[in-house]
Order: sequence, then structure tokens, then C-alpha cells
Amino acid sequence: MKLESNYQVIIIGAGPGGLSAAIYLKRAGITPLILESNSPGGNLNKTHKIENYPGYVDQDGTTLAFRMYSQVEELDVPFKTEKVVSIKREDKNYSVITESNIYSAEYIILASGKIPRKLSALNAEKYEGKGISYCTICDGTLYKNKVVAIIGGGNSAMESALYMSDLASKVYVINRSSVLRADEKEQRDIVKKTNVQIIYNSKVLEVIGTGKRVSKIKLDSGTTLDIDAVFVCIGQEKNDAYYEKLMLKTDNKGILVNNNMKTSLDNVYACGDVLSKELYQVVTATSEGAVAATSIIKSIKNSSNFKI
Amino acid sequence: MKLESNYQVIIIGAGPGGLSAAIYLKRAGITPLILESNSPGGNLNKTHKIENYPGYVDQDGTTLAFRMYSQVEELDVPFKTEKVVSIKREDKNYSVITESNIYSAEYIILASGKIPRKLSALNAEKYEGKGISYCTICDGTLYKNKVVAIIGGGNSAMESALYMSDLASKVYVINRSSVLRADEKEQRDIVKKTNVQIIYNSKVLEVIGTGKRVSKIKLDSGTTLDIDAVFVCIGQEKNDAYYEKLMLKTDNKGILVNNNMKTSLDNVYACGDVLSKELYQVVTATSEGAVAATSIIKSIKNSSNFKI
Repeated sequence: MKLESNYQVIIIGAGPGGLSAAIYLKRAGITPLILESNSPGGNLNKTHKIENYPGYVDQDGTTLAFRMYSQVEELDVPFKTEKVVSIKREDKNYSVITESNIYSAEYIILASGKIPRKLSALNAEKYEGKGISYCTICDGTLYKNKVVAIIGGGNSAMESALYMSDLASKVYVINRSSVLRADEKEQRDIVKKTNVQIIYNSKVLEVIGTGKRVSKIKLDSGTTLDIDAVFVCIGQEKNDAYYEKLMLKTDNKGILVNNNMKTSLDNVYACGDVLSKELYQVVTATSEGAVAATSIIKSIKNSSNFKI
Repeated sequence: MKLESNYQVIIIGAGPGGLSAAIYLKRAGITPLILESNSPGGNLNKTHKIENYPGYVDQDGTTLAFRMYSQVEELDVPFKTEKVVSIKREDKNYSVITESNIYSAEYIILASGKIPRKLSALNAEKYEGKGISYCTICDGTLYKNKVVAIIGGGNSAMESALYMSDLASKVYVINRSSVLRADEKEQRDIVKKTNVQIIYNSKVLEVIGTGKRVSKIKLDSGTTLDIDAVFVCIGQEKNDAYYEKLMLKTDNKGILVNNNMKTSLDNVYACGDVLSKELYQVVTATSEGAVAATSIIKSIKNSSNFKI
């Protein structure tokens, strides 16, 4: 590992929040480094249709992800596909340690989102990647004319069920309560699908398989369903291991920030799903990215280092 | 004037904030009424190129406005082109009085933006519409191969100057201080234009004309410039006459809201440029519209009136 060049700003994560921050910074003459462990676009890449990002009528998430990333690429913002493992404060700067390099920056924007919440059922972990998946867009096409179960009752579960209803022969939706949390529009769309069956008030107790592949799930009602795949869409949880050492103020939902998207630590900002907030949406993430960037721009321009 | 039907939610203004709120409300099964005195899209319609709305690479403002409106139209949200003149609180509801009708609503979203700040110079008012304009996109094409002045030094002034540099033979930019406030990217773009001349540290003292049309402007430096049109791009100011009676908490920049976009009054929310806030952008307005809508959805669903 060697110390790479210094950056004024490092953005960790290239979802809608991180990409928006990059656009605002670069347009103001500040070139950030973006570090992302996966493909740019974050959870957009796992979303079939985006219907609530104003200006995008009925487009798929990967297209919107691609367009946001193109905008950043055209602005010549450096992008590295490296997973950040930790961040350390060193005097006035921060060291960002990835699996292969160490970078130094004056300002950090944490935009790494959350990770999918795991299914807590017997043998669920054992069958991950063997029929248990968190992303229909990524893996759904493997189950053409097969039987799948979607676990969850929110928008992402409904979107996954809708998506799979055009591929699979049968789609079960397993919802733990008696009502769905999804938008009314999503609920109305799903009701029209004759091959989708919603099973209310049910939890998955056990995943049963051949050892190599999932074959059944057992519900707490006693019912056992024959299925070929399980898509788990029960929300997200904190992805906080890499920033733990910074001892930022957080709560059980995520990082706490002020109106300028500043965390409890000097020069560390955050935006998007990594935050503790009310509304986790593409449209809020892009706004928070713009606000974080603008706060940093003001801070840099007010210090003596800035020359146009 | 007659009392029209009651609405759960009335959105005043169809800029990015109001349209985003409409998308979120309608998708949740709540049909708002949108009232707008002008064409949908708000200030987007006055913006040549949108370069900082993530997902939109180099598109013009009217296209983005049209796409946002189409999204709302496809969701069957009622839209009326009526200017709101006042709002009154009546018991638990609000009466929204337009130039031709009175509407009643439980919830109000104020999304009416701001109005362009007027040029304060001798005879400036007299020549409005006679060579003094606030919108290059609307009126710029009248000045092909003519000489124009842009007043201001922010992003909107630079965008207006860039736009006019491809039409007019000569573009003066009159900036009151020795530095431009615009993004560095805008500044770099403008420097490349050989027919644009930036005059720093200068204010317009007087507008001179034939009585029918503008012909010159006199600066405080003593210089007089021959011009065919003046585009005033010196920011926005409050458009508060219609909501004055509500006695909302405001400051000199606009309406004050909490993190849920609620104003100081029950059931009255606000979003977009109408607010007092740090960052006035398309991306922040759409986010605030989504947050205002989501707050109202929660409030309605928690009350007894909501049935899916």
C-alpha cells in the first residue's frame, strides 16, 4: 500500500447522492475523487422502474444510473472502483484506506448508502447466492417460467414482484403484516397481475434446499411453498464498519447531520441513504449531495486555499 | 365567484417543487389540485441549459419542465391555470381564492417560487417590456445581431450571457463587484466567448430610451453604452402578497419551515424557492416537494379519513 496523491474532497459512494455532490463540486472548480466498491448508480441499479424521480417518466434505474454517471464522467471527475475499509483522522486531514491504496483528503463526503437487510430464517445464510437473492434486476432473469417468492411489503418488494410477474410463472409475496407498506399506485399495479399471490401475516421460518439450491420455504403459518428462488426486499441496514473509527454521531437509522449535511466531525459530510432521516429516495439523495457539496465549496472558498 | 369542490390538498405553483409534491401525493392515492398562474415548470422555463440536475446531461429547461409536467399529467392530477390572490383560514380548512374561483382544502402546499428582482435604476420601470426583460429564453430571439446588456454576475446572468452570445452581435455583462458569483464552470465558458465583455464594479444608474424603446444605459462609472435590450438577472425576491394574511413565520429570504417542510401554521407546507434556505436549485426543490408530500401523506394516513 502506498500513499496516493492528496485530494481536496473524497466522495465515498457513487449512488445518486455521491454523484450529485461530484457534479456540484466539479462545476465549482473543485475536483473530488470518487471511491465506489461497485458499479456507479448505487441502488438505482437494483431498481426496475423509477416513477418518482421528477423528469424521469417510467425509466429503468440502470438508465438513470448511467445518465448520472455520464454527467460526472463528462466533467472529468476521477472515479476508482475500490472498496473503502476504514477512514482515519490524521491531524487536519483524513486518510481513506481502501483494499489497495491509501488516499488523503481535507474533506470527506460519506455517500455509501446502506446494505440490504438479511433474511433472518433458518438456513437463509447458507443459501445466499444459491437461490436467495436481494436483487431481481440482477438475478431475476435466471428464473424465467419458474416459481419465486418475494419477501417484503414495501415499494421495493412490490417493484420486485411486478418485475418478476413478467418473467416467472408464479410469484408469491410474503408480507409479515395484514397491510402492504408500498405506495397505493404500486399496490394497484400488483393486484392486476394474475400470477402474483400475496400471503399476509406471514414470516419465513426456514429455507429448505438440496444443499446446492433452494427448493422450499416454510412459513410460520405452517405452510410450505415450493419455490425456485427467494428475493429478500425487507429494507436496508447500516453499512458502518468502515467509518466506525471516526466515532460520528449516529442513531439506529444512520449518520446524523445538520442542515448543511455536516456530520459531528469537522470537514466530514454525508448524504443519501447513509443518513438517519425521514425519506429515503433518489430525489432526497441528489438534493443532499448538492447541499453537502455547496457547504464544502463555501468552506473552501472562505479559506485561503481557493483560487479560481 | 363560486365555491368549487373541496380538495384534500391544494398545491400552489407548478415548478419543480410543486410537481414533485404532486407525483408523491398521487402515487400515494391522494389527488391534489395544482393551481399555477403561468405555464408548468416555473423557472425551468426561463433556463437555457440545465447542467446540474443529476440525470439530465445538457438539456434545456423547457424540456425538463415538460417532462416533469407530463409525469403529473399521466397520473391524472387536476391542473388549473389560475392566479391565487389570497388564502384564508376558515375553521379547520383553508380557502384558496383565485382570480375566478374559491377552492377549499385541508392541506396547502405553497410552491409558488419567487419573482425576479427589479432593476433599481432611473426609468427602469418605464422601459419594462420595451427592451427591459428578465428572461433571455423568452425574449432573446428578438435581439439577433443586436447589442444587449446582461445585468448580474451569478449563474443565471452567465447562462443568459452565454445564450445571448450565440444570438447577439455583442453582449455586455454588468457586474457590480470585482468578482463573479457564478460557478467556475460558467465563468470558464463565458471567457471563451469573444463577443462578451464583462464590465466589473459597475451599476446601472439610468435607462435611456426613445420613450418607446431602450437605447442606452448609463453606468455609475460615467460610461454610457448603446444597447438594444437589457436582461436583468440579479436574483429573485419574495412573492408573498397572496399568503400575507396567513401570517406565516418568514424571514427576509422567504417562508420558514421545519425538516418536514411544515410552516408555522397547521396543515400548511412549503417547498422550493418560496422558502428561506441555503440552496435554491431544481434538485433541492424536487426533494422538498417529496418531503412535504410525504409529511402530508403521513398526517392523512394517521387521521381517520384515509382509506385505500
